[in-house]
Amino acid sequence: MGNCKFARLSLKSTFIWSLCSQYSTALTAVGRALIVRSCQLIQHRYVHSRGLGASPANPGAAPPWLPFSRVTQEDLAFFRTLLPGRTITDPDLLKSSNVDWLKTVEGNNEVLLRPKTTEEVSQILRSRNLEVCPHRGNTGLVGGSVPVFDEIILSTSLMNQVITFDNISGILTCQAGCVLKNLSNYLEERDFIIPLDLGVKGSCHIGGNVSTNAGGLRLGQFWVLADGWILNCLATLRKDNTGYDLKQLFIEGTLGVITAVSILCPRKLKAVNVVFLDEMTRCSSFQQLLETFQCCRGMLGEVLSAFEFLDASCCMSLLEKHLKLTNPITSLLQTTGSNTTRDEEKLHNFLEEVMTSSLVTDGTVATEATKIKALWSLRERVTEALTHEGYTYKYDISLSVEKIYDLVGGYGHVGDGNLHLNIPSPFNDPALLAAIEPYVYEWTSEWKGSISAEHGLGLKMRNYIYYSKPSEAIALMGSIKAMLDPKGILNPYKTLPDNIH
Amino acid sequence: MGNCKFARLSLKSTFIWSLCSQYSTALTAVGRALIVRSCQLIQHRYVHSRGLGASPANPGAAPPWLPFSRVTQEDLAFFRTLLPGRTITDPDLLKSSNVDWLKTVEGNNEVLLRPKTTEEVSQILRSRNLEVCPHRGNTGLVGGSVPVFDEIILSTSLMNQVITFDNISGILTCQAGCVLKNLSNYLEERDFIIPLDLGVKGSCHIGGNVSTNAGGLRLGQFWVLADGWILNCLATLRKDNTGYDLKQLFIEGTLGVITAVSILCPRKLKAVNVVFLDEMTRCSSFQQLLETFQCCRGMLGEVLSAFEFLDASCCMSLLEKHLKLTNPITSLLQTTGSNTTRDEEKLHNFLEEVMTSSLVTDGTVATEATKIKALWSLRERVTEALTHEGYTYKYDISLSVEKIYDLVGGYGHVGDGNLHLNIPSPFNDPALLAAIEPYVYEWTSEWKGSISAEHGLGLKMRNYIYYSKPSEAIALMGSIKAMLDPKGILNPYKTLPDNIH
Repeated sequence: MGNCKFARLSLKSTFIWSLCSQYSTALTAVGRALIVRSCQLIQHRYVHSRGLGASPANPGAAPPWLPFSRVTQEDLAFFRTLLPGRTITDPDLLKSSNVDWLKTVEGNNEVLLRPKTTEEVSQILRSRNLEVCPHRGNTGLVGGSVPVFDEIILSTSLMNQVITFDNISGILTCQAGCVLKNLSNYLEERDFIIPLDLGVKGSCHIGGNVSTNAGGLRLGQFWVLADGWILNCLATLRKDNTGYDLKQLFIEGTLGVITAVSILCPRKLKAVNVVFLDEMTRCSSFQQLLETFQCCRGMLGEVLSAFEFLDASCCMSLLEKHLKLTNPITSLLQTTGSNTTRDEEKLHNFLEEVMTSSLVTDGTVATEATKIKALWSLRERVTEALTHEGYTYKYDISLSVEKIYDLVGGYGHVGDGNLHLNIPSPFNDPALLAAIEPYVYEWTSEWKGSISAEHGLGLKMRNYIYYSKPSEAIALMGSIKAMLDPKGILNPYKTLPDNIH
Repeated sequence: MGNCKFARLSLKSTFIWSLCSQYSTALTAVGRALIVRSCQLIQHRYVHSRGLGASPANPGAAPPWLPFSRVTQEDLAFFRTLLPGRTITDPDLLKSSNVDWLKTVEGNNEVLLRPKTTEEVSQILRSRNLEVCPHRGNTGLVGGSVPVFDEIILSTSLMNQVITFDNISGILTCQAGCVLKNLSNYLEERDFIIPLDLGVKGSCHIGGNVSTNAGGLRLGQFWVLADGWILNCLATLRKDNTGYDLKQLFIEGTLGVITAVSILCPRKLKAVNVVFLDEMTRCSSFQQLLETFQCCRGMLGEVLSAFEFLDASCCMSLLEKHLKLTNPITSLLQTTGSNTTRDEEKLHNFLEEVMTSSLVTDGTVATEATKIKALWSLRERVTEALTHEGYTYKYDISLSVEKIYDLVGGYGHVGDGNLHLNIPSPFNDPALLAAIEPYVYEWTSEWKGSISAEHGLGLKMRNYIYYSKPSEAIALMGSIKAMLDPKGILNPYKTLPDNIH
């Protein structure tokens, strides 16, 4: 039965591997999460179940509504005094903040607040037993940043100031509502880079990136806890070993609202090269891909900043079929270093090596910015091509190396990294969904993978946490939640499963 | 008054800066903590105060003894059945485990246990209300790994097996008692490296390194909690974003005993070069050192693995005076890459640049392993030279960039990193100590530095935590401690201050 299901998956699915080097977090193109607005349908609209909350019959079911206070006229008056002109109740203005980016989750919130300072956030939380949903750039894929019922939306969009930047240490301190792209531009002008690159960088907020633990960003933070307590752990030091490191707890706004962050930013390295390796699939095995990757790490280790592989039979045919892209690539690697000439020499040596040993039949080096952009966009347009297939079931899993060998049937070992598994279908089909889930999660869990490598758990995945974490650890998370947010008002219905509040 | 004290400090102190590159954590020679056994005296021996416990009059005073159960004959019988031949009660054998490495702290323990498995650790903790002190390589500098009174010593020295190593992803999983040097040898044979290098690598245990949060090591762990609960968070994935990341909490054995760890290991890069830059101090300002460092990061960014500066007026004269080392260096940088020729070219370009712009008068590149070792040993022998001065007050602080400018009077900005501040004195002088402390901590705190960059808090620094963390954060740590270890039996008297149990 397992094999039968697996066969279906492997036939229908497309996948993209990110085989990043060990240095990649410190460099640039890491974790280029591929996120394209696709034509999804609202699947999670629970407004009508308000008050009818019950234990979910299955992991994807509605969460039981929790009896929080409702926003009164006194609350509104208080908010309007505290945030004049920044207390939004106009239904038209609220609409877009109630729906997530994929248009799969819709809340029914009636108040949106736009604080500008940590102190204002503290006063909002201190006011009454009112549940809040911290709202960042609304680019999440798991329904974590929009209300489920009528939680107050706490938007950080006006908390968008850089506080300090130290151009010796590279430590940036800024408010949590800064847009990633704006920070990137700010740093580029100063010859530094932000250690994260996402397709949605023009919308996502740095506070959201940090809340979902995006790679390497967490040097320190300012939090406001559920009772309005302000906790200043805004480290501006790379090394500090005094007591427990609390910052990794503040995930998805469920223990505290992050209002400012500090991040260690690397210097910008000017020499960027992208190589695409061609026809590797004719070599017919993943084993050869892995040998190429191993060779690449040995010969390009310190400059390798990304290594991505696209499943040829699916991704490539999709690109050709829907986007009329000919000559699509199968594998793409990027180097980032300080000296173009030296890096190119290293790359040519590498290409010679892998072609001599027949691992690769051809490879082309791109150094011009426009060509590099074009190559990356090929990689990034896979998701766009997928949307033309109709509906796509999206999974973001990571798996250990040995198990991949079994999974992709004799394809050999695969480096660590995460797998964007996309299962296209002409339409959203409950029968197909039932065949995929929970099978995908069971399969990932059995092989000790993570069911969410990058995206978090949010609303949609909250009850699947047991597939990736032992129940003891989840119980401990629940105890921490109960300790820090005893009334459960911070981003309720998210991250932790329904049986823990 | 502050200035007067500062003048004393700046005259008497020697300091060493580690200005590591942003890539250094992923590379090798990072955080080469300089630890040499020096002739200290036992300052913390509280055996005679047993039962007299009272609130300490000052931060360095004895902790109040806590009324734990005493080890009974039944307990011993249980331990001997569980750990035959591995339950040590011979006072001669116990002696060395009761005294810390610097010989400044001495406990009075009567039982040492040597489990081999996580399950055995669990059974020990589950047995009764007996306090334990997890004991690793005993190389800590803050009295964290030896008993204070008569806590049971839980040694991990027999938990020394590698569990798995994946040569594609570079993920190593091993028991917590593996000696760092053994792991380093194991990985070197497989063309990988362990991402940590310490002077005490021949003794320290990986579990101890992880417990004190040594850079970049924490991928996942196996813990045993105070009640014997086993928590398996031994991740073998680089990416996992499901729920709260608990691993950063398990510091200094106070919330759980780490029994196994998983670590992401980088590939070994064969080209190592060390450069020493000479006579930089004749340029008379830190500003020029910083310009050199900035230039270095721009030109060598991806291969730069260490940049260390030694205060010339003190360190250099000490080396000359006590160790008869002539022509000592003032600054040392290391590159680690995949291609010797290319890296050397980059280095020579860099040297040309800094000499042309008069930042440096001379520089020498060393590529041979023996010469590299000799250069590093110069850096490492500063501490040895210090011991010839008599007694040394040692501090391990990190400070933010702007404040260093003020501190070292017109020396300019300094990159982030940590400062090993050593204040030599002919003997251990209480009057001098009173002049130094708490002034050093107040001064660090005022400038938002950390009072312990690398060493942890242990016994000696527990009450100084308020200088580096806000009281709200410390209260939260106390709540977490109370939740996970309600009886306070795990490494009592360590990390958290006496007013929190």
